[in-house]
Amino acid sequence: MILYQSLGPNPRVVLMYLAETGVGVDRRFVDIMAAENRRPDFCAKSPLGHTPLLELDDGGCIAESIAICEYLDETLGGHALLGASAAERATTRMLVRIVDQLVVVPMTAGFRGAEGLPMFQSRLLCLPDAAADLKRLAADGLAQVDRIVGAGPWIAGDRFSLADILLYSFVEFGAMVGQPPDPALAHLATWRERVAARPSAAASANPQQGIGEA
Amino acid sequence: MILYQSLGPNPRVVLMYLAETGVGVDRRFVDIMAAENRRPDFCAKSPLGHTPLLELDDGGCIAESIAICEYLDETLGGHALLGASAAERATTRMLVRIVDQLVVVPMTAGFRGAEGLPMFQSRLLCLPDAAADLKRLAADGLAQVDRIVGAGPWIAGDRFSLADILLYSFVEFGAMVGQPPDPALAHLATWRERVAARPSAAASANPQQGIGEA
Repeated sequence: MILYQSLGPNPRVVLMYLAETGVGVDRRFVDIMAAENRRPDFCAKSPLGHTPLLELDDGGCIAESIAICEYLDETLGGHALLGASAAERATTRMLVRIVDQLVVVPMTAGFRGAEGLPMFQSRLLCLPDAAADLKRLAADGLAQVDRIVGAGPWIAGDRFSLADILLYSFVEFGAMVGQPPDPALAHLATWRERVAARPSAAASANPQQGIGEA
Repeated sequence: MILYQSLGPNPRVVLMYLAETGVGVDRRFVDIMAAENRRPDFCAKSPLGHTPLLELDDGGCIAESIAICEYLDETLGGHALLGASAAERATTRMLVRIVDQLVVVPMTAGFRGAEGLPMFQSRLLCLPDAAADLKRLAADGLAQVDRIVGAGPWIAGDRFSLADILLYSFVEFGAMVGQPPDPALAHLATWRERVAARPSAAASANPQQGIGEA
């Protein structure tokens, strides 16, 4: 198996998953700033040129960070970060979808329409006129997630899960691109410190560490 | 187990899943037009008042249509609509996330800022100034999905899956609320006819059929 990864919060989700579980996968770095993910050889593997991408030993390819983590968790990770029972896994998937819909999509669309516009406008539909509204929507999503996190310690309660990894990767991304969480969201602030103290947070911060170019 | 459902494309996803697999679940109808999903007794079960909601026999609750279908598929449905292998399931989850991010989120946000504004503005952050842009983004997402569907017959190729159910529920929803797919998207048009011919399409069209109020 080969994991193609790049800069960005979705690649970080998979790196953090690997660091949490100790699952080992060969990695290659794809330079999205140089549009390597838009080259025909990469698009033949990933339908929309998305990173991260997991190439299986039989040549099959899985894109989308969450689907890659689900695959690794099912085949190598012993369901460590999805959950030990079907009900726990369903709860994790519920929370992943809530974070995706309320935070990830509006945050990334807001970024692409503003700070990310120079990079993305030639390759994706960007919405500069809607960017401020999209950022407001992402901030509102974080406020809803803050209520779900509550006393925690994790978003699913006592159990650290893929939903924490997804949320953390995008909270850190937002903080880097002008969409930091409102400090008044106290549950989220405490939760963020808890995640930042895990070794996987530092271990996933640099996608190029220890690997070569694709 | 009790399935709480309502009008809307996400509840339809679960109904279509049940119709496809023959999995039986007791159902209750929640009147979201009357904001029954915002009442404290319902919000105690569903963190954000979202429908559909699956209440388990031990009192645990799972919200989010995709998480509910995953739970049913894992416990009762024999992985019929996720996939027979880990790689198939990963492909389904990849496609579900692509449809969610490129179509579902911008389409629903566009709807809430325009046609849905009278219903939603008192309970959710709506973006009327961004609605037209969000609809453009959803239309662009459908164009990307059209390329993935290609010759089909299904979005995952030969295998009908939860990703088809999700896409169909939202394509039909979009068609009802002023966001029909561009007829020039020929792959998507042919695919839509194929899904419409399945008995589960008609069986999932009316969420109140055969059930009482919650």
